[in-house]
Amino acid sequence: MIGALATDLYELNMAASYLRRGMTRVATFSLFVRRLPPTRGFLVAAGLEPALGFLESFRFEPGELEYLRDELAFSDADVEALGDLRFTGDVWAVPEGRVVYAGEPLLEVTAPLPEGQLVETLLLNQLTFHTSVASKAARCVLAAAGRDVVDFSFRRTQGTDAADAVARDSAIAGFTATSNVAAARRHGLRAAGTMAHSYIEAFPSEADAFRAFAADFPHRTTFLVDTYDTPGGVRTAIDVIQELELEPPLGIRLDSGDLLALSSQAREMLDEAGLQHVRIFVSGGLDDLDIDDLVRAGAPIDAFGVGTRMGVSADAPYLDTAYKLAEYDGRPVMKLSPDKISVPGAKQVYRTGGGDVVTIRDEPPPDGGERLLVKVMKDGKRTLPGPTPGEAVVAARRRLEADLASVPESARDLRRPQAPAPRMSPRLEALAAEARTAVLSGDRSEP
Amino acid sequence: MIGALATDLYELNMAASYLRRGMTRVATFSLFVRRLPPTRGFLVAAGLEPALGFLESFRFEPGELEYLRDELAFSDADVEALGDLRFTGDVWAVPEGRVVYAGEPLLEVTAPLPEGQLVETLLLNQLTFHTSVASKAARCVLAAAGRDVVDFSFRRTQGTDAADAVARDSAIAGFTATSNVAAARRHGLRAAGTMAHSYIEAFPSEADAFRAFAADFPHRTTFLVDTYDTPGGVRTAIDVIQELELEPPLGIRLDSGDLLALSSQAREMLDEAGLQHVRIFVSGGLDDLDIDDLVRAGAPIDAFGVGTRMGVSADAPYLDTAYKLAEYDGRPVMKLSPDKISVPGAKQVYRTGGGDVVTIRDEPPPDGGERLLVKVMKDGKRTLPGPTPGEAVVAARRRLEADLASVPESARDLRRPQAPAPRMSPRLEALAAEARTAVLSGDRSEP
Repeated sequence: MIGALATDLYELNMAASYLRRGMTRVATFSLFVRRLPPTRGFLVAAGLEPALGFLESFRFEPGELEYLRDELAFSDADVEALGDLRFTGDVWAVPEGRVVYAGEPLLEVTAPLPEGQLVETLLLNQLTFHTSVASKAARCVLAAAGRDVVDFSFRRTQGTDAADAVARDSAIAGFTATSNVAAARRHGLRAAGTMAHSYIEAFPSEADAFRAFAADFPHRTTFLVDTYDTPGGVRTAIDVIQELELEPPLGIRLDSGDLLALSSQAREMLDEAGLQHVRIFVSGGLDDLDIDDLVRAGAPIDAFGVGTRMGVSADAPYLDTAYKLAEYDGRPVMKLSPDKISVPGAKQVYRTGGGDVVTIRDEPPPDGGERLLVKVMKDGKRTLPGPTPGEAVVAARRRLEADLASVPESARDLRRPQAPAPRMSPRLEALAAEARTAVLSGDRSEP
Repeated sequence: MIGALATDLYELNMAASYLRRGMTRVATFSLFVRRLPPTRGFLVAAGLEPALGFLESFRFEPGELEYLRDELAFSDADVEALGDLRFTGDVWAVPEGRVVYAGEPLLEVTAPLPEGQLVETLLLNQLTFHTSVASKAARCVLAAAGRDVVDFSFRRTQGTDAADAVARDSAIAGFTATSNVAAARRHGLRAAGTMAHSYIEAFPSEADAFRAFAADFPHRTTFLVDTYDTPGGVRTAIDVIQELELEPPLGIRLDSGDLLALSSQAREMLDEAGLQHVRIFVSGGLDDLDIDDLVRAGAPIDAFGVGTRMGVSADAPYLDTAYKLAEYDGRPVMKLSPDKISVPGAKQVYRTGGGDVVTIRDEPPPDGGERLLVKVMKDGKRTLPGPTPGEAVVAARRRLEADLASVPESARDLRRPQAPAPRMSPRLEALAAEARTAVLSGDRSEP
């Protein structure tokens, strides 16, 4: 459970100031990605479920309030007002698993101003991180072109919570399993894993280690063959499989070296021994483009273990997200800072045959447009009961599968992706022009 | 509290197999960084405190054991043996805040083999992540050359736990405050922050917003001046300061645009108005090298807010860490996989005038050498009482301050850092040669 104190100090300053002044009318904040990283042609929305959980349980605990008063000099009245706060707003959001692009709101909050402000930090944190990882993982799945991909990232994610999120988000992206046992349990995922090099080294010989493992775990026997010398390890695996007459499912794992050459050699050795059914699993610092190279080169690989570089989204470890006030008390507002211009007003996004269109929230939809933003919370309560963690993952994965079919080839290209740019509806453009003129002329006195 | 199930499935397979076979003699595992990222000349050790907390409380809960039996096909005997496991080993580690280099163990575990194996994933996760961030943050502090640096990363870290870690690790590195209120409370740090653009936009005018904020938070009045137009915002800040006769501490914050030009212009305007005491704070996607550029160009900046790129260590979001079995039951072991050769045996690192020397753990120290690895846990208990979170941060920051003085200029260089390479002692080299010969000749049957 993430507490309400999980926020930036300035959010608390602003909220307290608003509360003192009775500035509690309804505001709409819009959360979106300004620009995609150069190596992303599309994003996969994720992080909504944990974000909604936070909003539902939003409250300051007594100890947190004492801290605000005693250490951060908030007044008794501030502390009392903050203590009474709950999140009572409405939330529109793009469901997890859907494909989104820059400039499209991932989420909008319409709530009394102090509430909408206080939840900024947490909403940005969750949606930025989960969406980064789901988008990166989706690239790995595209690269694998139908082969299995397994999450091996736990040991080098940015903390243990991050590992849990990565297991979940990579499952949304289509990974078939995770090595992370706690996350598998929590999210109803398949756990996968066999042995490490240290296991081989702890036995007098590689063959002894293989024999022991096969005896102990006959249902998940994948021999790690590169501890000393890969072709030698493959030979040992073949010998042990034949000696013990092991039954499928069986596999070998290569974790180092030239994976194209070694997997080809291993496949030949296995086939010659009549072991066509033994699967070849590879791992070892693989990234989306490495997988793509191996698949295009025709490497006889059945499954990829993908770790660190997916788990931290190494080539794009964050997204350029923003959470901007778009409307206060019925007045559209916008920011004109260089490179950070925001678009005013509550919005909607429609997916049409001619691309995505960002509109004013309530304007009539473009012909044949499908709405991306769904009302997921009303008056601080979910509009639908919260799914179980496992249901949430399965539903999100299905959405992604369906959406990917409509993503242009150029956006799916792994090496030079070109992200589609959504259009603004004429009404939204007119609203932006008006708000801009009003800001520049200083005519902003209207409530 | 992180549970024992926070591990990779293969660790559980191996541990269960070892337990079945009575392979519970003492093993030593060594955790180290294989190579530094090209943009790092040194690392700052961090993550030990959370790792020790995990080891102290290591145990499988009943629900976790049921999951292992019912979903992952572990036997009743496996589950019973795992349920009885606690961490009873010894741990040597480099204290947090110390400077370390590639090839030097950050931590060694000497414990019964199954215990040492099961804790691999969590130890790697914590030490890799915290050390990454502390090392990145140390570069920001070096770049700022004495000016204040504040952690603004919460909104785009890889999860909320990650944000907590970043606040802590950046404080170890010398950051003077964090925007993250929950982390400030937890680790005894200074919380900092004033207002966002949305605050300005929520008022009829910028001047109204400044007046309101100054009235509400006279002790932390820093005006954000770039919402509409920076020089105009500075002018408004000056007017409001003079109109309300505001007293120091006062500041302005620039969050966009050409920070060198704008800070110079702002300083001039403030000075001309007799407001030499008003500090200039800058933020907005800053990285270590941006800070360095501004400082070298003589920008009149008093403090830097550093966010996302520090918080995810964007240029090096992970480290190439390994946790390798170095010895089992008195026998040194090593791995010969391409590019992943490990050095056998339990080790120590000595810092000498002539550079760092990695030795066998118990060999006589080189002349004048200072030991880096300290015995922090014996028989599963800390050798010293756990410090409070605040004490841990302060002690680590002092260690870093002391160590930085001895880091060569070439390693501290921000643009082309050259990391010193530790030497191996002659005895350790001889041991490695012996073990290699033994592995290659297949003579590994001992003992």
